Amino acid sequence: MAEQQNEYQGKATMEKITSLAKRRGFVFQSSEIYGGQAGAWDYGPLGIELKNRIAQTWWKEMTQLHDDIVGLDAAILMHPRVWEASGHVENFTDPLVDCKKCKARFRADQIDPEKLAKKECPECGGELTDTRKFNLMFKTNIGAVEDSSSVIYLRPETAQGIYVNYKNIIQSNRMKIPFGIAQIGKAFRNEIVTKNFIFRTCEFEQMEMQFFVKPGTDEEWFNTWRDRRWKYYEKLGVKMDHLRWHRHGPDELAHYAKDAYDIEYLFPMGWKELEGVHNRSNYDLSRHMQFSGKDLQYIDQDNGNERYIPFIIETSAGLTRSLLMLLCDAYDEEYVGTGDPATSDKNSDDWRTVLRFHPNLAPITVAVLPLMKKDGLAELAQDIRAELKEDFATDYDQSGAIGRRYRRQDEAGTPFCVTIDYQSKEDNTVTLRFRDSMEQVRVHRSELVQRIRAEIKNYKRTK
Amino acid sequence: MAEQQNEYQGKATMEKITSLAKRRGFVFQSSEIYGGQAGAWDYGPLGIELKNRIAQTWWKEMTQLHDDIVGLDAAILMHPRVWEASGHVENFTDPLVDCKKCKARFRADQIDPEKLAKKECPECGGELTDTRKFNLMFKTNIGAVEDSSSVIYLRPETAQGIYVNYKNIIQSNRMKIPFGIAQIGKAFRNEIVTKNFIFRTCEFEQMEMQFFVKPGTDEEWFNTWRDRRWKYYEKLGVKMDHLRWHRHGPDELAHYAKDAYDIEYLFPMGWKELEGVHNRSNYDLSRHMQFSGKDLQYIDQDNGNERYIPFIIETSAGLTRSLLMLLCDAYDEEYVGTGDPATSDKNSDDWRTVLRFHPNLAPITVAVLPLMKKDGLAELAQDIRAELKEDFATDYDQSGAIGRRYRRQDEAGTPFCVTIDYQSKEDNTVTLRFRDSMEQVRVHRSELVQRIRAEIKNYKRTK
Repeated sequence: MAEQQNEYQGKATMEKITSLAKRRGFVFQSSEIYGGQAGAWDYGPLGIELKNRIAQTWWKEMTQLHDDIVGLDAAILMHPRVWEASGHVENFTDPLVDCKKCKARFRADQIDPEKLAKKECPECGGELTDTRKFNLMFKTNIGAVEDSSSVIYLRPETAQGIYVNYKNIIQSNRMKIPFGIAQIGKAFRNEIVTKNFIFRTCEFEQMEMQFFVKPGTDEEWFNTWRDRRWKYYEKLGVKMDHLRWHRHGPDELAHYAKDAYDIEYLFPMGWKELEGVHNRSNYDLSRHMQFSGKDLQYIDQDNGNERYIPFIIETSAGLTRSLLMLLCDAYDEEYVGTGDPATSDKNSDDWRTVLRFHPNLAPITVAVLPLMKKDGLAELAQDIRAELKEDFATDYDQSGAIGRRYRRQDEAGTPFCVTIDYQSKEDNTVTLRFRDSMEQVRVHRSELVQRIRAEIKNYKRTK
Repeated sequence: MAEQQNEYQGKATMEKITSLAKRRGFVFQSSEIYGGQAGAWDYGPLGIELKNRIAQTWWKEMTQLHDDIVGLDAAILMHPRVWEASGHVENFTDPLVDCKKCKARFRADQIDPEKLAKKECPECGGELTDTRKFNLMFKTNIGAVEDSSSVIYLRPETAQGIYVNYKNIIQSNRMKIPFGIAQIGKAFRNEIVTKNFIFRTCEFEQMEMQFFVKPGTDEEWFNTWRDRRWKYYEKLGVKMDHLRWHRHGPDELAHYAKDAYDIEYLFPMGWKELEGVHNRSNYDLSRHMQFSGKDLQYIDQDNGNERYIPFIIETSAGLTRSLLMLLCDAYDEEYVGTGDPATSDKNSDDWRTVLRFHPNLAPITVAVLPLMKKDGLAELAQDIRAELKEDFATDYDQSGAIGRRYRRQDEAGTPFCVTIDYQSKEDNTVTLRFRDSMEQVRVHRSELVQRIRAEIKNYKRTK
């Protein structure tokens, strides 16, 4: 394990990923010109395209391809009672202590228990305050009066929006159990310690599906969904030896959970949670029933109007975290020279940095490159780009040596480059260059769209 | 005008739209089981599909089809200095007065100036408080300390996220002026009076594009973008006689604007702003330059490194507002009986409610309906649905009379129904039924995907 991690870290390190993300416009620091806003990040031109494709791929998989799942998009601002029912007002807290001397702040559960017992600062030895519960929900006020009656929270998770709407959805869309509700949206947590780039932030996006089942069938559905979610990552072309299951032990299990597994990914900083598949029992719906006074039981019309509170199987993935995972997973440095890689300069042209995204996820699908600007090649290239852009996200680049332009596209993860040369003017063929193999084939212009579509469909990651 | 509006209102009223939206799962009240959360709405299964398609259509139009525009997705939580620079901390206020007697609250600019001068409540005649400025930004605190040093705002508009990133984007994506940055995202305003369903809410989504141009070329670009945005609505198939331009008079013009036009739509409640096309001059970038101390001038490398602060042409459309517009625009009640419509019962089967969405926007593209459940028709229909769902958003419905099922799809705006009958078992043909004309044609199963694709591409709204 340690060895595998070292070998891996030799390529993608958080420093390299962060630097590439900034340099190529995947992710910028929020409000950078004002010194940055901790815990928030902005997604640049390539980043938002990647994020959109991850979201669309998940959405299609979960809703369009699953007959028994529909979508929802609940508001970030919900009624404050929702968070009382969910337990967040009372329990969604971190234990914090401050050093009275050096003013450093710590999570009490992350410092040496001996020092905590002695109330001794682990950094300067000064005196620590008592531990206090710090609620991670962002609070604001709605309406013109700022008092406790107008307090409202930014949702700390998207799941509750699904639970409070489940009866509405049954009614409007005539759903029958078992069925699921999928949602993608932002959530906010006032994390005191944000870290690892976009891995843990105050503002983030989740892709969640809550599947409503009859009690007693929950364990079977739990296994079904674990299986489906694992296969989903296979379909994305992720390195499967960088994924593993982690089952929550009794001390990790949330108060609402009957059973819980995380899918962990081997990030450069180690194995970290990517997605949770949880059996949430009927905890949430029972609580909302109690706090709202509404009957949230399901009425099974096909079985003599039997009534029960459904169990819920949740699959909860981080969207922004998935983006980080895919950047790490796709990152590669490859020797493309002819000599001995061991003695070559890593900054020379003998090496390339390449993001091996699945073509369905790559921010740019096709780059169109005229070999030269002159002799009408640029015009022809623009003309061909115009043909391609209805179907694909395209880029156009005419500046610099062609090899340099290929490298730029490799680093952006563009799977296909179309090069227009002098022969193109004569026989209407172009060069189609593949990112992963760097192989080139000549394709007739009239067959280009179809060929690229086929290449996307048949793509298999080999490196 | 008044006549046109009355004729129009005879079909789509806000009551009908709101009721249909709830009944069919387009829009639900937020946190309804807790009595609802004012100013926030949840988008149900059909609503989120419609919203996604509006967003994707706009995004494709603005980024994929425009070579000189790239995307961005900035965080909702930005550095608080951003809102000082933009003028929001100081000026983004409503003037409010309260009645000391009946406790009613008013916007001072919306009550009779005479009563305001006399400080007399327009409702009960009681005494009014002085007018106070009420800032519409939601405020919260980030970090563990709740004091003025930790105040942070929920962004009241998405535009500033683009301005503070414009240099980053020039650098990472090698953009040259003129170029644009497009963004879709949520914004929040603590509106005291929310109204007209999802038209004015506290939480909403914007689709904005900021186009950076050389000073002196701004008026020409302003006209170009007015023209392009108008044509966009034509392409969406919107009733063009329900759209008009409104130019801001000197009293309406924002402090940053050199010129401003709104595209207004004739909603059931009258003409209302749908989108703004504004010449924002160099106000925002100048302010950010001043407040951040960073040089935000553009350096024109193609023209002897000439430096200037670009002018900005903004096109700003409401996404959730566009959704309301499209619901109203698509809504139709049609007499489909054979007698005299004037004497027929509007609730009878002689009438249908139909949403005439462009097929690219409709939440469900194809519904698959077996004529009967028995004799293997249901299985065959499921089989055909499985073939269609990789390419289209599909629905499946086997319950009730076929006519009733068509009506349900009409009301959801589904442009195509595929019906499987006994003949289908024999010759592998199905019935393709068109929503708008209610015409039916027989199509061979093997040609179905292609035929639907062609129908979408060639769609023209006729009613």
